[in-house]
Amino acid sequence: MSIAETPEPPYTAVIFTSTRTPGDNGYTQMLQRMEDLAAEQPGYLGIESVKDGLSGITVSYWRDESDAAAWKQVAEHLVAQQRGQQVWYDDYRVRVATVGRDYGRG
Amino acid sequence: MSIAETPEPPYTAVIFTSTRTPGDNGYTQMLQRMEDLAAEQPGYLGIESVKDGLSGITVSYWRDESDAAAWKQVAEHLVAQQRGQQVWYDDYRVRVATVGRDYGRG
Repeated sequence: MSIAETPEPPYTAVIFTSTRTPGDNGYTQMLQRMEDLAAEQPGYLGIESVKDGLSGITVSYWRDESDAAAWKQVAEHLVAQQRGQQVWYDDYRVRVATVGRDYGRG
Repeated sequence: MSIAETPEPPYTAVIFTSTRTPGDNGYTQMLQRMEDLAAEQPGYLGIESVKDGLSGITVSYWRDESDAAAWKQVAEHLVAQQRGQQVWYDDYRVRVATVGRDYGRG
């Protein structure tokens, strides 16, 4: 993982935390496709994702909340979300947040 | 990892993404201590953390931004932050965000 090079705040962070069901069931392929597709959307700023076994945290960054909301409604993404709820995720939570300040070495 | 049981928004999320230097150098022990210590602070709501090799994302949740800021200034945490900058982290970024809405199965 490389740390996303986001601009000066404010911007929007979508924090997606999940625990998966066992087995791949097409998950890995869909995940890569979704990461590629997200990167093409208006207002996309970057993504950070770490998985350990069945646990995962993915944070995607967006110019503003309306860009994040538009990505949620992209047709292919809607299909993936539905399959996630039905097959891939045991539990998950999405938190939409406004980053007000940031700091660090990056 | 279990998904944090946070209250109704708004609340504060501190998103900490990092890549570590090789070797443990006391990191694992300090991390456990910091997670225990954070949980004792006023306004602590929960924490989610996933590591994969040298990459990590930890999101801690707080009642508000002043609670998150107070935790940053706890003496033992300041020592850990300094050691993190000097020894443990190759790169890192901290983003302080206000969660405006959340949803999911959790």
